[in-house]
Amino acid sequence: MNILFIMYDQLRFDYLSCAGHPYLPTPNFDRVAQMGVRFTNAYVQSPICGASRMSFYTGRYTSSHGAQWNGFPLRVGEMTMGDHLRKAGMDCYLIGKTHMRVDAEGMARLGLAADSVIGARQAECGFDVVIRDDGLWAQGPDGFYDEQRSPYNEYLKTKGYEAENSWAAHANAGLQDGEQASGWMFDNADKPANIREEDSETAWLTSEAIKFVDTAQGPWCAHVSYIKPHWPYIVPAPYHDMFGPEHVLPPNRDPVERENAHPVYDAYMGNKIAAAFQNDDVRAKVVPAYMGLIKQCDNHLGRLLDHLEMTGKLDDTMIVLTSDHGDFLGDHWLGEKDLFHEPSVKVPMIIFDPRSSADATRGTTCDALVEAIDLVPTFVDVAGGTIADHILEGQSLVPFLHGQPTKTRDYAISEYDFSATPQAVKLGLAPRDARLFMVFDGRFKMMHAEGGFRPMLFDLKTDPNEVYDLAKGSTHQAEIDRLYGYLAKWGRRMSQRVTRSDDDIAAMRGKSLRKGILPFLKDGTEVNPEMTTAYRGPVGQNFTPKT
Amino acid sequence: MNILFIMYDQLRFDYLSCAGHPYLPTPNFDRVAQMGVRFTNAYVQSPICGASRMSFYTGRYTSSHGAQWNGFPLRVGEMTMGDHLRKAGMDCYLIGKTHMRVDAEGMARLGLAADSVIGARQAECGFDVVIRDDGLWAQGPDGFYDEQRSPYNEYLKTKGYEAENSWAAHANAGLQDGEQASGWMFDNADKPANIREEDSETAWLTSEAIKFVDTAQGPWCAHVSYIKPHWPYIVPAPYHDMFGPEHVLPPNRDPVERENAHPVYDAYMGNKIAAAFQNDDVRAKVVPAYMGLIKQCDNHLGRLLDHLEMTGKLDDTMIVLTSDHGDFLGDHWLGEKDLFHEPSVKVPMIIFDPRSSADATRGTTCDALVEAIDLVPTFVDVAGGTIADHILEGQSLVPFLHGQPTKTRDYAISEYDFSATPQAVKLGLAPRDARLFMVFDGRFKMMHAEGGFRPMLFDLKTDPNEVYDLAKGSTHQAEIDRLYGYLAKWGRRMSQRVTRSDDDIAAMRGKSLRKGILPFLKDGTEVNPEMTTAYRGPVGQNFTPKT
Repeated sequence: MNILFIMYDQLRFDYLSCAGHPYLPTPNFDRVAQMGVRFTNAYVQSPICGASRMSFYTGRYTSSHGAQWNGFPLRVGEMTMGDHLRKAGMDCYLIGKTHMRVDAEGMARLGLAADSVIGARQAECGFDVVIRDDGLWAQGPDGFYDEQRSPYNEYLKTKGYEAENSWAAHANAGLQDGEQASGWMFDNADKPANIREEDSETAWLTSEAIKFVDTAQGPWCAHVSYIKPHWPYIVPAPYHDMFGPEHVLPPNRDPVERENAHPVYDAYMGNKIAAAFQNDDVRAKVVPAYMGLIKQCDNHLGRLLDHLEMTGKLDDTMIVLTSDHGDFLGDHWLGEKDLFHEPSVKVPMIIFDPRSSADATRGTTCDALVEAIDLVPTFVDVAGGTIADHILEGQSLVPFLHGQPTKTRDYAISEYDFSATPQAVKLGLAPRDARLFMVFDGRFKMMHAEGGFRPMLFDLKTDPNEVYDLAKGSTHQAEIDRLYGYLAKWGRRMSQRVTRSDDDIAAMRGKSLRKGILPFLKDGTEVNPEMTTAYRGPVGQNFTPKT
Repeated sequence: MNILFIMYDQLRFDYLSCAGHPYLPTPNFDRVAQMGVRFTNAYVQSPICGASRMSFYTGRYTSSHGAQWNGFPLRVGEMTMGDHLRKAGMDCYLIGKTHMRVDAEGMARLGLAADSVIGARQAECGFDVVIRDDGLWAQGPDGFYDEQRSPYNEYLKTKGYEAENSWAAHANAGLQDGEQASGWMFDNADKPANIREEDSETAWLTSEAIKFVDTAQGPWCAHVSYIKPHWPYIVPAPYHDMFGPEHVLPPNRDPVERENAHPVYDAYMGNKIAAAFQNDDVRAKVVPAYMGLIKQCDNHLGRLLDHLEMTGKLDDTMIVLTSDHGDFLGDHWLGEKDLFHEPSVKVPMIIFDPRSSADATRGTTCDALVEAIDLVPTFVDVAGGTIADHILEGQSLVPFLHGQPTKTRDYAISEYDFSATPQAVKLGLAPRDARLFMVFDGRFKMMHAEGGFRPMLFDLKTDPNEVYDLAKGSTHQAEIDRLYGYLAKWGRRMSQRVTRSDDDIAAMRGKSLRKGILPFLKDGTEVNPEMTTAYRGPVGQNFTPKT
């Protein structure tokens, strides 16, 4: 079996018709949901691209792998999906985005060359790279945001786009009065992107994925990883005007949220991003563009599915559809993805398992609490390998797919290290105090903030919109204590004993006794004669130095 | 300046005359204490050789580096004292024991050859090896406990000892009726070891250390690491009968400890080791041998100090004397080192700083709570480097040595992963539940056990002997809650963000704004014109595909 592990960037869990969006038909996402299982409570380990992805790719919490923010390198030697899968006999390829930053200092310390196979895998988060394109080819006074080469820009050159940076000038800009209308500006979000649809990023990457599946030798896992519907919010025709202000859901925000708000939440509500999304004119242009980007993703997903079906590959390809985090889009007075409200931290997670053992669950939903880190164990399970549960912190989702009983987790954890942000500066926080933790038990969701702040608490049963922060009062101390208990237990988890499995340890138990370490004997009668002889050593080897 | 970092194995904090032992004169330890500062509250990160040492050598808690038991490899890439010191321009050498186990699987995954400089450092815990001798050359039916070559046995061969394993037959055995009297048996502890004193392990390693300091080019840090006074408890003449039963302090044990004992403590009190040390005949022979081993260590320390003084090297050599853990010797009904009573988890820590800035503190004691992980930052400080406090979890002790004000820690943490032991089997614990944590605030010491047990609590102010477990009742819930709060905070510590320093993060703050990522603008008026131009890109690059 092969695995097509498809990730969209910044795709909200609820912007799919199968997840209930009233105005955004996504027949192809829905088609996979019909073929498989849609997980309705899937949480990422951090609502920020880089950290979230490193958790997807390592199967470990962000505090465990340490790459807690965009641009924090994943330390050399940290095991990835590729390492685990290759051990199980499955190759692991990348087509698209990872947001991986190489640990150059660690590579140098270990003498690893980036152009060796081992070095390249270390540098590329364990993947064998078909295409690496992180999708943010922005340029400013200090140079490029991303210092790697852009394969997408190279592609555009071959297609006749002559700009120095066609990603910026065409794919992510409109046209107005003969001038580039930058996609960075929300006022331009209703314009069509200045590019042919078939040359846009989503179309291009889908074509590359199709080329891959046509030629690859299995068993393989391919991570097809789209930048969209991530900003810049601008989409080529015909998607730019498929949706209008009349399709924009009202923001889920309430004045009560601003009363006595948690200081960290307050800092986020006060930033420029939030200010933009608090403006209904912005939402009226941006949300339709975001919906158009998703609609485009859905259409290209259909193209890929049709191709798999036509070539018979749907029979032996697992398909996973997910995202690295969501997008507030003005909900809770916020833009972007920060903190742990549902639009930010919950993601779509739809899995099609072609095996007949999954027939009983096709078209169903699963409400169990699942996490991004569950995917690596799932894939190792599918590949027939042994799940290294002393390294991998999630659990295989295969039992859910096969309708088998399995242990469900008591709580999900997500983390947010905002040490590099203006909000940390505003709050006067030292880097290590600018860290947030979510503990969610399926009903109560608590946010703990380092730095001496009170927690936040929502009861999603009585307040599914997450508007009433119950930690403002003192009525829910028992729940807060209970969730802090979970967080403390999680904090003591065994996460770094990566060189010894539980099986290794079971095998060690009592072993030293047979390797000569037999202390604590009074006179030797405590052990059996075989041992006594063994540890005494041959007799007669007495003190006879030659000198 | 150079650093002589001397470690004794299993040396109790209170078996030195400067620490108050009434019958064990240790003039040379006392001499260093007079020249420097003796820390009276120094705790190891785990009361077991391998785990404790990996914390000494990495400057990180055992849960952070992951090598939580003897024989658990330190994962490839984990930064060590050697990595930090070489970066600061100081070489780092090993003469003696580390208990390091190479992460062979990790080395293979990264293609590191053990015979390369980089590979050898990875395999040897970051040290450049002068001599590696872990000091346990025991042999049983399943082969050697330690599969490395024994340089000490090779040395003995050159000295005419003809046994196949002279470590066992001579250095750690006596002689009775012409037969080897094994040092493993406590009944033989009062016999002289069957070896010339000058060929014994402590003497040999001291000579090697002297050779090293005579030839090494500085600045260097040398880890001189003795196996003694670790068992086997047997010592050559004249040390074997310097002390007798009349010098054996009564065991610190009380029947009240056995009443309603914590299940983990109870399991340890019931093991063979404990049974042996509960026998006063055993103590009457073993404790004098243990004292003789320490006395021998002290004499050879004197030899080394005299040599340094004679050669003028005392003027620019920092000397550190410490141990990886203690030895119960029958206290608390226990033998060996497990759990967190003082005889197990507290260690000697004596530091001589030759610089005049340390003159004011010479001959003083320091009662601050310090930890084994404080040494790497101390050494980096001495070497003039920048302390990588995003990796190193301790703090430099130099301010204490120089009598300067500094932040003291609120609590010390130690951990004990006993998953590989018979006690875990007896208690029916899965490997990851067989873990203990100590939280000590300088007065109250709590032990938390995973696996659903109650904690243990001692008040060292009212009960310095640690006999009354206050968690047996419900009177001290407030203290227990407070210490659990510390443990939870520690559990959330930032320990794996090893690729980004706080300074790196401060430099990142706001940087992306100048690299082209300028989203969340409505119309561009939100930023200054320089930015607007930069993100808009050159005008006129409009859609003119060639085709």
